[in-house]
Amino acid sequence: MASPEIPAMPKAMERVKAAIVGASGYTGQELVRRLLLHPQVELTAATSRQEEGRSLADVFPRFRAVPGAELKFILPDPDAIAATGARFAFLALPHGVAAEIGRALLERGLRVIDLSADFRIHDSAVYEEFYDHAHPAPDLLAEAIYGLPEVRPEEIKAARLIASPGCYPTSILLPLLPLLRENLIDPATVVANSMSGVSGAGRKADLSLLFCECNESARAYGVPKHRHLSEIEQELSLAAGQPVVISFIPHLIPVNAGIATTTTAKLGAGVDRAQIGEALEKAYAGMPFVRLLGEGQPADTKRVTGTNFIDIGWVHDPRTDRVILMSAEDNLGKGAGGQAIQSFNLMAGLCQTAGLQSV
Amino acid sequence: MASPEIPAMPKAMERVKAAIVGASGYTGQELVRRLLLHPQVELTAATSRQEEGRSLADVFPRFRAVPGAELKFILPDPDAIAATGARFAFLALPHGVAAEIGRALLERGLRVIDLSADFRIHDSAVYEEFYDHAHPAPDLLAEAIYGLPEVRPEEIKAARLIASPGCYPTSILLPLLPLLRENLIDPATVVANSMSGVSGAGRKADLSLLFCECNESARAYGVPKHRHLSEIEQELSLAAGQPVVISFIPHLIPVNAGIATTTTAKLGAGVDRAQIGEALEKAYAGMPFVRLLGEGQPADTKRVTGTNFIDIGWVHDPRTDRVILMSAEDNLGKGAGGQAIQSFNLMAGLCQTAGLQSV
Amino acid sequence: MASPEIPAMPKAMERVKAAIVGASGYTGQELVRRLLLHPQVELTAATSRQEEGRSLADVFPRFRAVPGAELKFILPDPDAIAATGARFAFLALPHGVAAEIGRALLERGLRVIDLSADFRIHDSAVYEEFYDHAHPAPDLLAEAIYGLPEVRPEEIKAARLIASPGCYPTSILLPLLPLLRENLIDPATVVANSMSGVSGAGRKADLSLLFCECNESARAYGVPKHRHLSEIEQELSLAAGQPVVISFIPHLIPVNAGIATTTTAKLGAGVDRAQIGEALEKAYAGMPFVRLLGEGQPADTKRVTGTNFIDIGWVHDPRTDRVILMSAEDNLGKGAGGQAIQSFNLMAGLCQTAGLQSV
Amino acid sequence: MASPEIPAMPKAMERVKAAIVGASGYTGQELVRRLLLHPQVELTAATSRQEEGRSLADVFPRFRAVPGAELKFILPDPDAIAATGARFAFLALPHGVAAEIGRALLERGLRVIDLSADFRIHDSAVYEEFYDHAHPAPDLLAEAIYGLPEVRPEEIKAARLIASPGCYPTSILLPLLPLLRENLIDPATVVANSMSGVSGAGRKADLSLLFCECNESARAYGVPKHRHLSEIEQELSLAAGQPVVISFIPHLIPVNAGIATTTTAKLGAGVDRAQIGEALEKAYAGMPFVRLLGEGQPADTKRVTGTNFIDIGWVHDPRTDRVILMSAEDNLGKGAGGQAIQSFNLMAGLCQTAGLQSV
Repeated sequence: MASPEIPAMPKAMERVKAAIVGASGYTGQELVRRLLLHPQVELTAATSRQEEGRSLADVFPRFRAVPGAELKFILPDPDAIAATGARFAFLALPHGVAAEIGRALLERGLRVIDLSADFRIHDSAVYEEFYDHAHPAPDLLAEAIYGLPEVRPEEIKAARLIASPGCYPTSILLPLLPLLRENLIDPATVVANSMSGVSGAGRKADLSLLFCECNESARAYGVPKHRHLSEIEQELSLAAGQPVVISFIPHLIPVNAGIATTTTAKLGAGVDRAQIGEALEKAYAGMPFVRLLGEGQPADTKRVTGTNFIDIGWVHDPRTDRVILMSAEDNLGKGAGGQAIQSFNLMAGLCQTAGLQSV
Repeated sequence: MASPEIPAMPKAMERVKAAIVGASGYTGQELVRRLLLHPQVELTAATSRQEEGRSLADVFPRFRAVPGAELKFILPDPDAIAATGARFAFLALPHGVAAEIGRALLERGLRVIDLSADFRIHDSAVYEEFYDHAHPAPDLLAEAIYGLPEVRPEEIKAARLIASPGCYPTSILLPLLPLLRENLIDPATVVANSMSGVSGAGRKADLSLLFCECNESARAYGVPKHRHLSEIEQELSLAAGQPVVISFIPHLIPVNAGIATTTTAKLGAGVDRAQIGEALEKAYAGMPFVRLLGEGQPADTKRVTGTNFIDIGWVHDPRTDRVILMSAEDNLGKGAGGQAIQSFNLMAGLCQTAGLQSV
Repeated sequence: MASPEIPAMPKAMERVKAAIVGASGYTGQELVRRLLLHPQVELTAATSRQEEGRSLADVFPRFRAVPGAELKFILPDPDAIAATGARFAFLALPHGVAAEIGRALLERGLRVIDLSADFRIHDSAVYEEFYDHAHPAPDLLAEAIYGLPEVRPEEIKAARLIASPGCYPTSILLPLLPLLRENLIDPATVVANSMSGVSGAGRKADLSLLFCECNESARAYGVPKHRHLSEIEQELSLAAGQPVVISFIPHLIPVNAGIATTTTAKLGAGVDRAQIGEALEKAYAGMPFVRLLGEGQPADTKRVTGTNFIDIGWVHDPRTDRVILMSAEDNLGKGAGGQAIQSFNLMAGLCQTAGLQSV
Repeated sequence: MASPEIPAMPKAMERVKAAIVGASGYTGQELVRRLLLHPQVELTAATSRQEEGRSLADVFPRFRAVPGAELKFILPDPDAIAATGARFAFLALPHGVAAEIGRALLERGLRVIDLSADFRIHDSAVYEEFYDHAHPAPDLLAEAIYGLPEVRPEEIKAARLIASPGCYPTSILLPLLPLLRENLIDPATVVANSMSGVSGAGRKADLSLLFCECNESARAYGVPKHRHLSEIEQELSLAAGQPVVISFIPHLIPVNAGIATTTTAKLGAGVDRAQIGEALEKAYAGMPFVRLLGEGQPADTKRVTGTNFIDIGWVHDPRTDRVILMSAEDNLGKGAGGQAIQSFNLMAGLCQTAGLQSV
């Protein structure tokens, strides 16, 4: 978080100019919150078609009196965005729309962190299967990096275009990837159940998202083929070195933010329980935002909301020989805005944790 | 619900005298609520050690002005309970305690509906394995009926002692039993994830149950071997005709009441998707409290809270050949008090739905 | 609640045919819930422009399997409604719209219980001042009865047209009216603060009513001149025998249902504390839906949600010589649908509590 | 917030050593959260009788992986605390207990910020009247400064002992003080209604604070003479230059954090509406943590939770000539821990906003 009370500091350092394209939704709001307070970032532009001309503070009264919140929304015009001097652009737009403006910004020399699904799927046919329309920019897929900083930091540092992962995928992939990489579980037995806060559904006037429709309610949705399965299975397959198909059941629960995911899978033949913990330790030891809770420790969303942490605990059930992986993250933090800024920090050569230390 | 506005009615019929032993918790409160309004029941006794001498209305102000709520709590003394003329006793007590007083009431000629776990497990060794103490009344296990009215109505009608099922088991068993009975799924692949409202944890002064600890939180707990697994697997095994061992992961979410359960399992070899719906229809068509939502319909706790319904929807995922069963119930209704009264209605020769029609 | 388990009963009595005009909102839903279960009512019609042709159970899955829920929504056509044989019509429509169809139904011989504001204000100029449009049916105002069953039961029994009070007004009027009637408080010092559940804002797709906008939020709104002030001050003035102008500040809090109102006023000169309790007792002793909690007892919305009760407690503060009146009701129950049915019961010559006894 | 990503910085500056006495409650937890991330503070001690020996991260898993959270709780022993080199001590203890250890720490040369009520009341007789026991350290009252940084910054800078205000008082005093100072309202007409999140009741195992008892509930409590009235009226009287007695009605609502207060009062004779806004502007213009929303703007707790802001809006009602003041703060932030750190920053010669800029 910015520390204006230390006058020397901000002056002392060059602030990196960045823009947020599509800043009026919940993810956009989280990006605004974190970038306004990021000690090494200058937010030069925030775009919104409906809020054009209003300031960040007017649209999000929570930011009133925060330095920088007087910035006015502009239209998502690539030239206008580039003209602000932004070297990086975060895209918090619907899929389909993101690819188009992403290309225009790349052409203008900006580096792009896209939080939509547009560049997450390497195979445009899979994209079309899951998103019901032809891919808007297949030629860019080759260079897009699926932005899991814990998995491919080097590619991210060098990337021009980041496809920042979805909220559900992050909570499912981080616990599973090390186990698949080391062949510790049977890929055919993976079942992931997630519970998400309502902010994950976005900030749109929809009867089903009204307080009275969500409060005191718990329900599954989007089964059996939620769109996030496409990126989840792509990354799991890469880790396993073979095609992986899983069951994924998302649920909506009455909390503002947070995702808790419980994933079960059979251990591979001859695999010992202890190898699970070892693989997780090996993969994430020393990583600033993955907190390994250890064996027998459940994860709780209330411990990660507002942060960029993902908590991971696990249990082995000898009765079924299944491992139960429990992960928790803030769907707007490590599941969206926080993780995108983590990638940005790597790209910009900043400390990975810059601007991401709130608890 | 009672209809005092029809003066003739109550007089016209004989009311069945019933007692609630352990009426100061959330389950006891639900039993009080439903029995006070039951048109054919006279609540003759409610017991509580800590509330002795206070009236139902004083302890639960919600019941103030409800006919019958002036009844005063008495101590759980079998003779005193029998002396009120009660022919039926509902036990809402901790396991271990229930068996003892249950026996005493049976000896005094009352028929007992026990909502604790004491009589749910046929095998006292399994009971001891899961509940960490020797069974307090193994000689009574033989006659205890596991009270799922949709599964064994005739045994319930004739029973002297009912072991009313737990909240999680009810939400898992009702969707699964027909599929196992007809061999439609592979028992070795069953994974059940449940989300429960906080009332399921009981009414006890415990830091972890404080509003601020539960609100804006979602967490798994009790893994990998929750006590309810003992009764779940007992009933699943009976239906499958072979030992069944499953994974069960309960979660706590910030709602007062309601359980949503999502259960996945592989279809058996050569089984067709359509057989799932057919088996559910065959099992539950015409049953008043099981609402089959049909294929592709998720269940939502907010549609069943306050009722005795269980909603069941299902989806088949051709990619994994798994069936996804989604069920929702009120953990205090069909998951506890409502179901116990449903069994009582059968035992007393009343209409199964008597006193259970609130929505 | 309906008691189909008593076969003789429904046949034995003549059910009163009633219709709900505008049944797809939260108030309409509450009317449906209570009338479907009302032992002496037959719901013959439910109207909705957007849901025409769908059944009550389809639109409100909570009602699935409830007898009568197969009824299909029709368009709000007066002739079609009358053709169903309905002798009573409940109007749960926006102000302005209600008056028009109300007139048409009266002309067709139905008796009307209007839950909108259209017939609550005797003076059409005041209506226009608060509702920003000319009164749609001033000629009907003379015969409309402001439907507080505790205040004017006889007029209600005989009425052809009931203006059922608003949710906030009910919670403010019932505690205050007896004190003003008996001159116990200074009318110029009345300040009422109310907290309402979100259902009070209606079922409309509005960003400000999204779960994430309301959860973890508490805010005042509609100050200083909320529309309900018009009916509140009209009734207070009638009771006081002089014009009364008060301060009323409504707040939105994150609960589905319930209104808690705290009203303060200075005691009149020479008034003794004890007279407060006596006046409340005198006004409401023996009334089935007003629960006087007594001196020093706060009211809690959680004890009245789902019921037709209003709880009223009070405290006198000798330091300021103010009385603090605390009331709680379900905004959809005693604050809307329940109270409308209470008036209907009186009009139809039924027991006042028929169909209103859920807790 | 700390910025460890700028290695040079922490070394470059002298960190102020501070201790938290009574760090296991919600206020203590908030102090820990903010001090761990405070760029110019080194937390040298945290005390708790029940958690002695455990680390901050173990007791509050939310802080796991946060630099400094490995600190272990010690017993509240003044010598042990002083031995850590702490120059400042925050006391988050029950009243009565705080005074005792506060004295011991003062004697050992620490400067004390007490968040309990012990040093808020200048008159020990008033303290005894409201807190039901003799004042534990009347000799220290003379030097204790009631720590409202916006009201008496200079006294705070020089203070050895700060009595940090209560959560309700802060939300009531900041809007009212300027109006009383300038004689704009009639002190005899002040009525304050507050709604508080449940964390305000503290972290204690109490049935009335269970999730199921608070969720879907709204209730007044502590009327007519809540303890906070003593400090509220003391400060209002000082501002008015005459004794002020008000009505204050606190309410509990189902949110974790946040207080919304609505205060009404009659304007003084001849006072013009515009003077209200002018007085607020004059009092708080340029102050970093008071956000004046302007005329007609309600305050919403959800815009201030997690921050140290207090939002203040106001409306004048010409019908009653009352001003309606609406304020919102985080009861744990500006209402407790945040404000205490704001005073600490002044005492330590740091920027007032250091460590308080999260949104």
